[in-house]
Amino acid sequence: MTIKIGIAGYGNLGKGVECAIRHNPDLELSAVFTRRDPESITLLTPGVNVYPMEEAISKKDSIDVMILCGGSAVDLPVQTPLLARHFNVVDSFDTHARIPQHFEAVDEAAKEGNKVGIISVGWDPGMFSLNRLYGESILPGGHDYTFWGRGVSQGHSDAIRRIEGVKDARQYTIPVEEALEAVRSGKNPELTTRDKHTRECFVVAEENADLNRIREEIISMPNYFADYDTTVHFISEEELHRDHRGIPHGGFVIRTGNTGWEDENSHVIEYSLKLDSNPEFTASVLTAYARAAYRLNQEGQSGCKTVLDVAPAYLSAFSGKELRGRLL
Amino acid sequence: MTIKIGIAGYGNLGKGVECAIRHNPDLELSAVFTRRDPESITLLTPGVNVYPMEEAISKKDSIDVMILCGGSAVDLPVQTPLLARHFNVVDSFDTHARIPQHFEAVDEAAKEGNKVGIISVGWDPGMFSLNRLYGESILPGGHDYTFWGRGVSQGHSDAIRRIEGVKDARQYTIPVEEALEAVRSGKNPELTTRDKHTRECFVVAEENADLNRIREEIISMPNYFADYDTTVHFISEEELHRDHRGIPHGGFVIRTGNTGWEDENSHVIEYSLKLDSNPEFTASVLTAYARAAYRLNQEGQSGCKTVLDVAPAYLSAFSGKELRGRLL
Repeated sequence: MTIKIGIAGYGNLGKGVECAIRHNPDLELSAVFTRRDPESITLLTPGVNVYPMEEAISKKDSIDVMILCGGSAVDLPVQTPLLARHFNVVDSFDTHARIPQHFEAVDEAAKEGNKVGIISVGWDPGMFSLNRLYGESILPGGHDYTFWGRGVSQGHSDAIRRIEGVKDARQYTIPVEEALEAVRSGKNPELTTRDKHTRECFVVAEENADLNRIREEIISMPNYFADYDTTVHFISEEELHRDHRGIPHGGFVIRTGNTGWEDENSHVIEYSLKLDSNPEFTASVLTAYARAAYRLNQEGQSGCKTVLDVAPAYLSAFSGKELRGRLL
Repeated sequence: MTIKIGIAGYGNLGKGVECAIRHNPDLELSAVFTRRDPESITLLTPGVNVYPMEEAISKKDSIDVMILCGGSAVDLPVQTPLLARHFNVVDSFDTHARIPQHFEAVDEAAKEGNKVGIISVGWDPGMFSLNRLYGESILPGGHDYTFWGRGVSQGHSDAIRRIEGVKDARQYTIPVEEALEAVRSGKNPELTTRDKHTRECFVVAEENADLNRIREEIISMPNYFADYDTTVHFISEEELHRDHRGIPHGGFVIRTGNTGWEDENSHVIEYSLKLDSNPEFTASVLTAYARAAYRLNQEGQSGCKTVLDVAPAYLSAFSGKELRGRLL
């Protein structure tokens, strides 16, 4: 028997979940829900229907877990609690500061519906959060550092696109190698986000636009670029489409800390990701946690959880016995 | 109220646990148990008693979790099931092939005693196992690779010491940089342990010993060295004590895998450890899982678990609310 998955929202992330389901034979795509016209959407998976979002609840008996693939700003704060009354749900809510209130809302809804909701699943928040927790639990009194990149920042790319004379743009966040090395050496440097990252921009300008003005507007833009070492490259539209189509990302979580009676021994724990596709990797993490949500609910659990609350074995399609024999 | 910890076995690992408890204010060392003469042992912690191992069970009401620090060959197969009837226990049982039967024995004992036993805790098995599980659950169909080192192998060091004319020796296992790079590149190379590691030996010879014969015996030793690229350095006893006193270790778990409808995007997940002291780091992991064992048992759970079965938040002294606000 397979676990039946619904996808709510069919953008890059929803499509990534569809692909991830194909890699997991114990999961099956049951239906996709969208706020767009369902007729306008063609799925990759043959034989699966697309419904308007409003019909989701009417399909609740044929779906074991709904994976929410909307945005954190507007969609998820409303959709996740709404659907958690009727489905086991998993989302990738990533507005860090609002996670506590999102947790409360989903917890109340999921408990009322006797369902499990797992929120803020992905890599940051998600796998990076897990590694921060394991790191500080094993090496209390140490330091941790998170670096992002090399990867595309959607927010920074959008900010450049809003500049007059800019046709399109892609911005990469890049970790500073010297800062990474200083952290790995156990020196516990004090680093701000700006010490840790540089920004590289690939910009397609309108014909006859003033390139110097555009460059100046980018590198002096407050919050986004002014405090960083920023490089701007002007390229053609063809080059942008040829060389910058992907949505790569990644990063590093490093924990350093000491042991011994007098703290005489030092240790470095490093977790890193190098991702060709940010949304597809996030979708793969969501999909593994969908399995966990289903299994936790089958055991009688309900309410909201995060990756910190889910025992690792629940993510796997294999039995505890097989995992112990093969992975320990 | 602190969690009261007992230590069974006071070698390098037991001493490491004692040091780790000092880094965790919610934990308290209650007693140490030994098979040696208790009078011969001086703890680092003032005011704590050392008792003969046979008296452990008589102290069960004053100890919340017993951390077993004996060896996997002889001690733990007997001690862990025996003590799991009376205490929540944590051990670092690391004979990979025998983990399933050790699990069964501890599970039966812990269920009878209504206690929790967490076995095979440390870094491999332990944190490396966790990372293999997370990796294969997120990127099914991918490949994983474990490399060990640079670090001291006790077994290989002992094997050299048994050669005639050798006074002392230290052997380091070293991962091959080219193999690491091939894995990180996503090429999915087929690698045996010997492709992945070289061996470096520091040997103190007896006066007038035949160094060429010793070198030859080392590099041709079946199983241990014959299949590896092995380097032998002869050094003085002073050099050995000065430069090779530590017990460093570490390694890498790398998962590579693809996503997308046609597997068009590739990803690399890498977890690595660089440890000054293998036993102290292992002890730090054991100590964090001791907290988990206590809390799981307080919630009414019993039986045997491994790191795969324990939700990460149980390792932390902080509340779920605080962790969500700070780490997600």
